[in-house]
Amino acid sequence: MERFRAQKSDAMEKFRQAVNSGRVDEGILPLLEFINSLPKFYSTSSCSGRVTLLHDVDSKPDNSWLGKWHRQVQVDEVLKAMIDPPERGVVLFKYESAILHLVAREPEGAKKLLVIARESGYKRVGIQGLREGRYMVEICDTERIDVPVIEKGKVLVDEEYLKHLVKLANKKFRKGVGKLERLENNLRDNLGM
Amino acid sequence: MERFRAQKSDAMEKFRQAVNSGRVDEGILPLLEFINSLPKFYSTSSCSGRVTLLHDVDSKPDNSWLGKWHRQVQVDEVLKAMIDPPERGVVLFKYESAILHLVAREPEGAKKLLVIARESGYKRVGIQGLREGRYMVEICDTERIDVPVIEKGKVLVDEEYLKHLVKLANKKFRKGVGKLERLENNLRDNLGM
Repeated sequence: MERFRAQKSDAMEKFRQAVNSGRVDEGILPLLEFINSLPKFYSTSSCSGRVTLLHDVDSKPDNSWLGKWHRQVQVDEVLKAMIDPPERGVVLFKYESAILHLVAREPEGAKKLLVIARESGYKRVGIQGLREGRYMVEICDTERIDVPVIEKGKVLVDEEYLKHLVKLANKKFRKGVGKLERLENNLRDNLGM
Repeated sequence: MERFRAQKSDAMEKFRQAVNSGRVDEGILPLLEFINSLPKFYSTSSCSGRVTLLHDVDSKPDNSWLGKWHRQVQVDEVLKAMIDPPERGVVLFKYESAILHLVAREPEGAKKLLVIARESGYKRVGIQGLREGRYMVEICDTERIDVPVIEKGKVLVDEEYLKHLVKLANKKFRKGVGKLERLENNLRDNLGM
């Protein structure tokens, strides 16, 4: 189990740095703190869900964001972020649900995470690898919005439609927060000591 | 290994029925036939990717489709499917990339599937459970379109925008077909006997 301990120690150092510099979403912090308090588990990169304007130039390293919000958004701030439409590629208005990466020391722990995550309503849940001391479970969901709103400098949608998108994204965001709470409660109930 | 054999036998009966009644996408059939020819693997529910108009009434069992195409689409057929906008809920224009469920008899086989799928470009790949004789690997991707086009009987987007969506969906569809071919080749190269 030396690998688990060493890797958890590394991950915890990165986690502390991320927390201290405000790079961990507040909405997910209590859940991650709980997981990391357990001797046989820890968290790696995780996100509580977000609304973004992704500038997609068909080459992932060159993609960037016109806006990124780990919370509900307002139409005005989305419009403001779109004010200078990029000439190249496509801009997508996106809602992405939470994604969590949790590592279990043993296969039994990974199995428990699978069951708890599915019972909490997450649809895409799987173990990413079967290395001893590192059973990485990815937990995510199918709730999404991916709408092209700008193409080659041209805005494709009007303000009224953007209002619909924002309303829908905020609704999904609230639903996502509820699901995360359910997950946190179920983890505490089933993994707590 | 009795469980594996019995479950494969059941799955193969269902697979044959699905093939015979045309319910298996042609694009994915050679890949599934290959997997099922291997003694230590078989396939369960899988889809080669699809473009749909989903009528979402916020209750999954009551959701339905105004249109569903396991191929590239034309603007006219999408418009035709939207001709009678439902009064309740939302209609989403969606592109969903391929999703495969492959069962390995042993953990080593499941690990191989994980590696091959990731090397073929799939982003969401995980083992769904760790039951002896049934290591189910889910392979899917993050390429998606999810655009609300009708809400409570009202069409939210114009024809020009729908043309953009169709173009984008067809581009993603072609990309998805290429990725499936890569997966099939890599599976044949690495699991073939």
